[in-house]
Amino acid sequence: MEQEKKARTIEEEEIKQAESGDEAEAQEEVIEEAEAELVDEDTEEADQVKELEVKVEELNQRLIRNQADYDNFRRRTRKEKEADAKYRAQSLAEKLIPALDNFERAMMVQVDSEDGKSLLQGMEMVYRQMKEALESEGIAAIETVGTPFDPHYHQAVAQAATDEYDSNVVVEEMQKGYMLKDRVIRPAMVKVNA
Amino acid sequence: MEQEKKARTIEEEEIKQAESGDEAEAQEEVIEEAEAELVDEDTEEADQVKELEVKVEELNQRLIRNQADYDNFRRRTRKEKEADAKYRAQSLAEKLIPALDNFERAMMVQVDSEDGKSLLQGMEMVYRQMKEALESEGIAAIETVGTPFDPHYHQAVAQAATDEYDSNVVVEEMQKGYMLKDRVIRPAMVKVNA
Repeated sequence: MEQEKKARTIEEEEIKQAESGDEAEAQEEVIEEAEAELVDEDTEEADQVKELEVKVEELNQRLIRNQADYDNFRRRTRKEKEADAKYRAQSLAEKLIPALDNFERAMMVQVDSEDGKSLLQGMEMVYRQMKEALESEGIAAIETVGTPFDPHYHQAVAQAATDEYDSNVVVEEMQKGYMLKDRVIRPAMVKVNA
Repeated sequence: MEQEKKARTIEEEEIKQAESGDEAEAQEEVIEEAEAELVDEDTEEADQVKELEVKVEELNQRLIRNQADYDNFRRRTRKEKEADAKYRAQSLAEKLIPALDNFERAMMVQVDSEDGKSLLQGMEMVYRQMKEALESEGIAAIETVGTPFDPHYHQAVAQAATDEYDSNVVVEEMQKGYMLKDRVIRPAMVKVNA
């Protein structure tokens, strides 16, 4: 009994000693663990912050790009709208031009009768009114006779050789040409002095 | 850096406390301090994470809004472009209509002479060609005589009382009306049966 007790005491003492001897070490371990945890947590949250900062930067860049796209689209759209508005009459004008050609040709007939002359006068009035309507939308005939030949406006279909005009000057209009504002919708067919 | 510094501080604290001899207590204090610091740092970084998360959410919302604005603008623009294209001939057509009225009036004269008849024939041809050009752009005369009066297309300027037509039917056209596709560009002036 006594021995047993002693033994136990020794054991306990040993344990105690061991514990007390290990105490500093054990505490150190706890601190190390706490530090490791601290570092782990730090690393984890630092990673999260970094990740979020990258995300914010990415979103900012996308916003900037989107805004630039939007601005470009708006600018392009405005220009297209302006061009559309400017030349809106083109399609109808192009279709009316052959009728105008015939109108002019029909008025060239020689009339001697009173009713014929009266009808011709009425038609000349209608023609002028039509021309004014077209002009108010920016459609006008291209100048020809007496102006220097310009391939942007004139299509040379014949050549002349006359002293009446300078060289390279339009001497005759074979078919009227038309502009819509600054755009040629049909060049004039002309005879040019050599 | 911050972590290193902290680790060093903890170490220094350890050495100091160990020297003072009150080891266990000192170590406990160090642990508590380290824990407190850990919590502080945690709070700081957690705040940063939260702040960044709010920022990300905000940027995402802005992106969604911008995209929606852009989409709306594109949709509206496309519709406007379609409408502009559809009715592009309107302005010129409106200006030509009074000339067409006069054209028709001029052709109503009685001609008996040969040259007059020939001129009239030529003009009728020009008129048909013009009408076709207008029709190919969607401009057409509104139906009148014999059709029920419709205030969307007809402007009643006189009333008739005849057994020839049903009640509320157009009996006479006083001035032609015109449509551009589905749009009335000038209502027809008509006489309606009572």
